[in-house]
Amino acid sequence: MRDVSIIGIGQIEVGEHWERSLRDMGAAAVRLALQDAHLERPEALYVGNMLSGQLSRQENLGALIADHAGLRGIEAVKVEAACGSGAAALRLAYIAVAGGIHDVVVACGVEKMTDTLGEETTSALATAADALYESEHGLSFVAINALIMRRYMHEFGYRREDFAGFALNAHRNAEHNPYAMFRKAITAEAFQRAKMIADPVSLLDSAPMADGAAAVALAPTAFARAQGLKAVRIAGSALATDSVALHDRRDPLFLEAAFLSAQRAYAQAGVRPQDIDFFELHDAFTIMAALSLEAAGFAPRGRGVTLALEGAITLQGRIPISTMGGLKARGHPVGATGLYQVVEAVQQLREEAGANQLHGCRLGMTQNIGGSGASVMTHILERLS
Amino acid sequence: MRDVSIIGIGQIEVGEHWERSLRDMGAAAVRLALQDAHLERPEALYVGNMLSGQLSRQENLGALIADHAGLRGIEAVKVEAACGSGAAALRLAYIAVAGGIHDVVVACGVEKMTDTLGEETTSALATAADALYESEHGLSFVAINALIMRRYMHEFGYRREDFAGFALNAHRNAEHNPYAMFRKAITAEAFQRAKMIADPVSLLDSAPMADGAAAVALAPTAFARAQGLKAVRIAGSALATDSVALHDRRDPLFLEAAFLSAQRAYAQAGVRPQDIDFFELHDAFTIMAALSLEAAGFAPRGRGVTLALEGAITLQGRIPISTMGGLKARGHPVGATGLYQVVEAVQQLREEAGANQLHGCRLGMTQNIGGSGASVMTHILERLS
Repeated sequence: MRDVSIIGIGQIEVGEHWERSLRDMGAAAVRLALQDAHLERPEALYVGNMLSGQLSRQENLGALIADHAGLRGIEAVKVEAACGSGAAALRLAYIAVAGGIHDVVVACGVEKMTDTLGEETTSALATAADALYESEHGLSFVAINALIMRRYMHEFGYRREDFAGFALNAHRNAEHNPYAMFRKAITAEAFQRAKMIADPVSLLDSAPMADGAAAVALAPTAFARAQGLKAVRIAGSALATDSVALHDRRDPLFLEAAFLSAQRAYAQAGVRPQDIDFFELHDAFTIMAALSLEAAGFAPRGRGVTLALEGAITLQGRIPISTMGGLKARGHPVGATGLYQVVEAVQQLREEAGANQLHGCRLGMTQNIGGSGASVMTHILERLS
Repeated sequence: MRDVSIIGIGQIEVGEHWERSLRDMGAAAVRLALQDAHLERPEALYVGNMLSGQLSRQENLGALIADHAGLRGIEAVKVEAACGSGAAALRLAYIAVAGGIHDVVVACGVEKMTDTLGEETTSALATAADALYESEHGLSFVAINALIMRRYMHEFGYRREDFAGFALNAHRNAEHNPYAMFRKAITAEAFQRAKMIADPVSLLDSAPMADGAAAVALAPTAFARAQGLKAVRIAGSALATDSVALHDRRDPLFLEAAFLSAQRAYAQAGVRPQDIDFFELHDAFTIMAALSLEAAGFAPRGRGVTLALEGAITLQGRIPISTMGGLKARGHPVGATGLYQVVEAVQQLREEAGANQLHGCRLGMTQNIGGSGASVMTHILERLS
């Protein structure tokens, strides 16, 4: 296997892009990543997307985005793993380059969620859950997370407000991210007063629906060095799965697939949790941030929330998370999110994170989750000295 | 790159499976392929599927099918390239094994199209076309093929009935395929009288909507030999793209992506069209069979139909196609089709094709098309002596 690096990143602002089509957004991110890499034409393009068929009546996105990015003819395909589609596309791009099948590959994530009515989008998002055992009975995706959060509070003795730290940190960090959807800090009082969506999940526990696209270009590290490109190495890459339905898991409060994919990524990178300098996790809901911290080994079971209470997750903390705003405040265009996470991790490792720059960091980790824990991708990125 | 072989195949009968869920069908095909390979657990599963989100309200199919096949935890993801999703999944499985990332990988294709009303399924299928420039204006997917067929007849001087040979051959070959949807021959008169769907495309020019699932297991050829498994080598594997919208192509009567992917597969395999013993092509419509034969180099431009008129495409002909019934008569569960084609090619090369067995064949080719030519996967399979 060849050593692989990220040699280019691209992202567009997350928001409500009623004036931009799916293809425009995707192609823009691809072109930005290629420009950043000083390359014209990759050999392949993997497009992460979850909802285009349902919400934009458009499939065949691989060919479509390739064509609109000026890459007609190349190998291109769409990859779907619910809200984990973006990092799944990166995983496949990594495999193609590491295995020596292709030299330069782009992974792009794109999603358009705001052209449709809120209930249509909510219904489409429910396809990330189990159609026969969950959504058919009226459980929305938020409701599934509410069940998990309620149980977690019961088991481990937390109150709703104990989760505030996740939202406060995300919003504080988004303030200086020009690509973020919500560039403003929130207060603990606002969190406390936030409108309830599915008790105990409030609006401020939840990442917003959004439109967006992000992309990265990959190449062998040897190629990147020879060309003098600013490369960030992919030290670990893993994808693991679990049951889609929550009731079918051994333990509904432990993200087995997140644990497995993190373990595989650590083993490949030869590092441990304590070596990781920051963690871009999947804070679609505050409860998911807590569970992701636990599954990845940053907190014991039932103690993920404690990290937020202690301030360990802030830019100054022991394990900074959501350093550019996370899903909560940067926004969560589902199929694009995994690539926004990676783009932001690369910004940190290249020291291009502006006001949010972490100092002296060498290893960043990203974790993207599809469904309530069914498909989980973990990537460990390393600054090359 | 490692040499890769298909070491197991699995398929369920194509038809209207109102009593079986998407997950049941997919998992069944995966288990059959693993049984055939005498293996329990692959390292990864790639699931080709186009319509599950729209028609079954279910995404996250990688994790879902993996779990229901008893493979919880493994790397699994859904791949979409419209009607070419099945072969796209195979292409990604091939990349993972050839590149040395995984040793045993299963590619599965699954589709459920008959639980919904015909017009819902037709509308969902239109997402294979360009949403903004084609389907939005009311063009169904059949209508797009009708435009191509009409233009082809005009340019090259064919009549509707000249396409009959494709349908007659497919139905004749399906008669002895126990997995086929329509196991009966049709007559030239029936073709002539067939109900018109979108002039000049009639019911008997068109492959039927269907439910189905097929899968193959891949491993390094060296592993297959060491284990004494009945292996069929993947000599060539390629994926190429073109514009999704028909009007945007250089020539609407030439499948550029089919040409490109065939050329790449030939180059990898080190063979020419005349070395290919049979060709499982994408006869979703008779016109697509003609264009595929031309793009792959079996007939000059405008002469694909002539091969049918001359009988060159029958089991006894120069280049047999649709040897187990093709999309037309075996049935076309869109995301599964690419893997049915490959399973059937393996049956021929292993001499397990029963009454339809071709004699002394060494090289088989499959071509799976997503959209009206936007995403095309070509695979060349070789019998190991």
